Amino acid sequence: MRTSIATVCLSGTLDQKLVAAHEAGFDGVEIFEPDLVSSPLAPEAIRARADELGLSLDLYQPFRDFEGVGPEVLDMNLRRAEAKFSLMNRLGIETMLLCSNVATARSGDEQLAASQLRLLGDLSDRFGVRIAYEALAWGRFVDGYETAARIVRIADHPRIGLCLDSFHILSKGHSPEAIETIPADRIFFVQMADAPLLNLDVLSWSRHHRLFPGEGGFDLGTFMAHLVRTGYDGPVSLEIFNDTFRQTDPRPTAVDARRSLRWLEHVTAEALGASAGGRAARMSASALPTAEAVSDINYVELRTTELADLRTLLGQLGFRSHGPHRSKAVELWSQGDVRFVLGEPDTEHRQPTVAGIGLSVDDPVTALRRATALFAPEVPRPQDAADEPLVGVRAPDGSEVFFGAERGAVPRWVSEFGVPEGHDPVLIDRVDHVNLAQPWQHFDAAVLFFRSVLDLHSEPSIEVAAPVGLVRSLVLRDTDGIVRIALNLVPSGSSETGAILPQHVAFASSDVLALARSARERGFAPLAIPANYYDDLAARFPLDAPLLDEIRELNVMYDRDESGEFLHFYTPPVGTVFLEVVERRNGYSGYGALNAPVRLAAQYQHLRPADQGVPA
Amino acid sequence: MRTSIATVCLSGTLDQKLVAAHEAGFDGVEIFEPDLVSSPLAPEAIRARADELGLSLDLYQPFRDFEGVGPEVLDMNLRRAEAKFSLMNRLGIETMLLCSNVATARSGDEQLAASQLRLLGDLSDRFGVRIAYEALAWGRFVDGYETAARIVRIADHPRIGLCLDSFHILSKGHSPEAIETIPADRIFFVQMADAPLLNLDVLSWSRHHRLFPGEGGFDLGTFMAHLVRTGYDGPVSLEIFNDTFRQTDPRPTAVDARRSLRWLEHVTAEALGASAGGRAARMSASALPTAEAVSDINYVELRTTELADLRTLLGQLGFRSHGPHRSKAVELWSQGDVRFVLGEPDTEHRQPTVAGIGLSVDDPVTALRRATALFAPEVPRPQDAADEPLVGVRAPDGSEVFFGAERGAVPRWVSEFGVPEGHDPVLIDRVDHVNLAQPWQHFDAAVLFFRSVLDLHSEPSIEVAAPVGLVRSLVLRDTDGIVRIALNLVPSGSSETGAILPQHVAFASSDVLALARSARERGFAPLAIPANYYDDLAARFPLDAPLLDEIRELNVMYDRDESGEFLHFYTPPVGTVFLEVVERRNGYSGYGALNAPVRLAAQYQHLRPADQGVPA
Repeated sequence: MRTSIATVCLSGTLDQKLVAAHEAGFDGVEIFEPDLVSSPLAPEAIRARADELGLSLDLYQPFRDFEGVGPEVLDMNLRRAEAKFSLMNRLGIETMLLCSNVATARSGDEQLAASQLRLLGDLSDRFGVRIAYEALAWGRFVDGYETAARIVRIADHPRIGLCLDSFHILSKGHSPEAIETIPADRIFFVQMADAPLLNLDVLSWSRHHRLFPGEGGFDLGTFMAHLVRTGYDGPVSLEIFNDTFRQTDPRPTAVDARRSLRWLEHVTAEALGASAGGRAARMSASALPTAEAVSDINYVELRTTELADLRTLLGQLGFRSHGPHRSKAVELWSQGDVRFVLGEPDTEHRQPTVAGIGLSVDDPVTALRRATALFAPEVPRPQDAADEPLVGVRAPDGSEVFFGAERGAVPRWVSEFGVPEGHDPVLIDRVDHVNLAQPWQHFDAAVLFFRSVLDLHSEPSIEVAAPVGLVRSLVLRDTDGIVRIALNLVPSGSSETGAILPQHVAFASSDVLALARSARERGFAPLAIPANYYDDLAARFPLDAPLLDEIRELNVMYDRDESGEFLHFYTPPVGTVFLEVVERRNGYSGYGALNAPVRLAAQYQHLRPADQGVPA
Repeated sequence: MRTSIATVCLSGTLDQKLVAAHEAGFDGVEIFEPDLVSSPLAPEAIRARADELGLSLDLYQPFRDFEGVGPEVLDMNLRRAEAKFSLMNRLGIETMLLCSNVATARSGDEQLAASQLRLLGDLSDRFGVRIAYEALAWGRFVDGYETAARIVRIADHPRIGLCLDSFHILSKGHSPEAIETIPADRIFFVQMADAPLLNLDVLSWSRHHRLFPGEGGFDLGTFMAHLVRTGYDGPVSLEIFNDTFRQTDPRPTAVDARRSLRWLEHVTAEALGASAGGRAARMSASALPTAEAVSDINYVELRTTELADLRTLLGQLGFRSHGPHRSKAVELWSQGDVRFVLGEPDTEHRQPTVAGIGLSVDDPVTALRRATALFAPEVPRPQDAADEPLVGVRAPDGSEVFFGAERGAVPRWVSEFGVPEGHDPVLIDRVDHVNLAQPWQHFDAAVLFFRSVLDLHSEPSIEVAAPVGLVRSLVLRDTDGIVRIALNLVPSGSSETGAILPQHVAFASSDVLALARSARERGFAPLAIPANYYDDLAARFPLDAPLLDEIRELNVMYDRDESGEFLHFYTPPVGTVFLEVVERRNGYSGYGALNAPVRLAAQYQHLRPADQGVPA
């Protein structure tokens, strides 16, 4: 698959955009006209720069409001086109994107539009360039690709073809099936965009909320499968208008973009299945190494300056210390098969509090190969020759994902720490979920990273009111519910207001009440839940009085769904982290969303004033 | 007008919300249930705290999904209601908001809904409370206030009335006229919300984008006039769900909110006009002092650490220095009637670069009275006894607006500076517009501030692509075009990325080309506009070759609209400020929006790397 990206997807100057696209490994770029017009580089210099970087210039875009107009406007439009064709010759670009008319069209007559496109084709022929006509979802008369395809067929000009953009097609709810009726040599260009499923007017939706494939809700594998079946083998390009990407460093954005096309190849091969003969075989050659099924979360690594407080909490919850590592400045705590590696944060890098998770898989090397095939950077793990090797990659927020082959056994690296004292009863079974607070810059990239690298699927995102902003939360999980990663979007203003959104790790217990009681005996003070919460709970659910009294006393929260019940309690926040213990009864599958605002408000009162985000 | 505000409008803890509402001068608050449930304060303590602060508790809200249900759900709902009525008694709240059913309703039969509301009314009677039934715009069966009013009429119960919310009515495009057919004693509560005019599903629009009255696009004066004509005299409350308000200090938000109700009273009196007899008279008693017509922008005050560079620019543009003030650490520059006061920034406060503007009006005292009636804080102006008094107020971003009575004459305070040397020709006529970059926290509040205090109207906002984000821009202007204030929204991520959005002042010249030439003779180097821009310009407009050559040589940009032409050039940015000179030919009324991305990209290249917002 030839990969391309429109310069509008990336922030900065045109040169910065080209460098970012090159470094991420794209084959080519689309030149977005405003980026050229704003650039101090002459067209010839841009061409030379792209050559130097090994990037082809695949498309000049967009040309607007051409067809369906009266004769005077047509003359002006042809004059305008001639200037752009001449510019394209200077740039060495062969294909120009023509968007369907949104402003000046006076007629929707397809014969008229086709005859005007034919004139444009004749003109473009003199410059050796060609026109890819695209139906915008908000075009005045032409707003569907099937209409655009008919007009191109009527125009019947070798230099007039189509551009297909998944957003314009799927946002209108149009079926992509009819793509297969278009001859491949009439498809001049393809742009792929994902998007969250919103009920917004298509123009605003397109301008602000497009996402790279795999980050939104469109079924792009099926879309691409239709395209592959036509025999199309031109560039597959990304044209993503997105408020976040516009504001952030273009280099990680370009890597995220490149990953999305790798993922798209993979899901296309899946969608093609066995049905498409040679093409499927060609695509499946580019399929990713199979995702390794995760059998457990082997450890979680936390980095915090508040180590002493965290140790106290872990002890109260029944974890036992293995002491420090024999050579590294970390320590190990465990309870049954749940393990924590603790350390101070790395002062050189901005390391998130939940700094890493270890996953047990059959074959760590295959897991690593899949991740690096998806452009995940491998983590160099400094270690003694005597340490057990671990392989891992870095997520967009800087946290690390490690793969090991333990599958339920005690990992050999545990022996690199000491041996804990005592034999406390084990009340914690496993890690239920890990909650990673994602800065707004990394949220969408993190969704794609975890979804693709670990083959997780995402549950619908929800929004939870915190005292200083709405928190968007999205859970990614595997089919068996072994790996559940909740990504929380830190509101974009929080760096200015100073609000902290702590991360957390939740353990599963088969008896959360017993655990809460035993922790209390060890001096544990849970996050205090207001009495008003329990009054409201009693109004919402007909709970038995003894249960209500007990959870009230223990500060345990409660929820239920169609299948079962959920009991959970929280530790107070310790710096930027806290812990949760949950009990899922009879297959309850949620996370207590209705309780989240109450929990966030209670935590807020524990934060240092400087971390609360509202001046006192 | 009794004023109230829902606690959901304000960030922080319930106590912080109450304090903010009290300090801003509200009469009462609505208790938003999640704020109560999350609060460690017992209901009795909340009641006592409100008493102490002189706030009435006007509404408990919301109660959901009650009516139109089957018998079993009805029993559960009545049980749920009983618990809430008991809670309301503890809080001392008389009125509960009931939203129309969105989830559990099985029938839209109005008789059924009315009979179930009657049961609720009987139950509420035992607690001495009453129910304000509100049609949500996304209600399952009841989504319009006229339907809700019919159901209330059929229910015919003294404890069952209506809540009218302007958002739910206007967002659906429903006419508010029929409000006048509702008996005043059936209207138990009124919530007023404005909103930008979006094509978004009503639920998302409501949850994220509500604004205080005067900050959006709804005609709320007409809405309120219908309400006043019914004889309603209960609380007028604000229920605003807004992502920005949720994240920012509740105290300035509460002041902004209180200002919006003062403004609403004013526009309601205007909408009532002479037609409503005694009621109009009652409302007009609360009308604001008339806005003083502004005859000119008398001066602009700039605060910057880059004074030396700014002086050079002003000199090159033909301004002359009057030297320093006789006692204050500021200096004056002028050209004709355009004046600049320059100084170093106040290190104690976060002072914006465009720190103040002076407006000439007939009666500065009336202008000040209007501003302070709108809760604008008066600025204490430190001055010698010998200085001419000036009156002024502070805008939400910290900039100052001063009123003087000069009206075209040289202000007397000019004599507090020295006398400039030389007699350069005057090529600058007036200040054309002032561009204030607004942090995201202050943008909506700034719109209301300038709109209400100076009686400006707003032009539709536009979005302009900068190299590191989209900039939203909205122009507020008076009828004569004397005062034009462009508010630019700094993208919310910029504090994290470090991107700077400079502010600017634009002068009007009757011969921008002559001014550009004379400035060049004085060594001026304008902001360099890329050659690609002029090639594109030539493709877009059939410009005469000599004019095109001249503007290209002088780095002057060009635009045209239906009526005329626009020529303008920019200085490079100096720290966080730059200057623009514009020439409007034949009544061109815009600001060269198409040129803005090119200008922003050119400025971006001048910024220090740390201010560019993208890591190099």
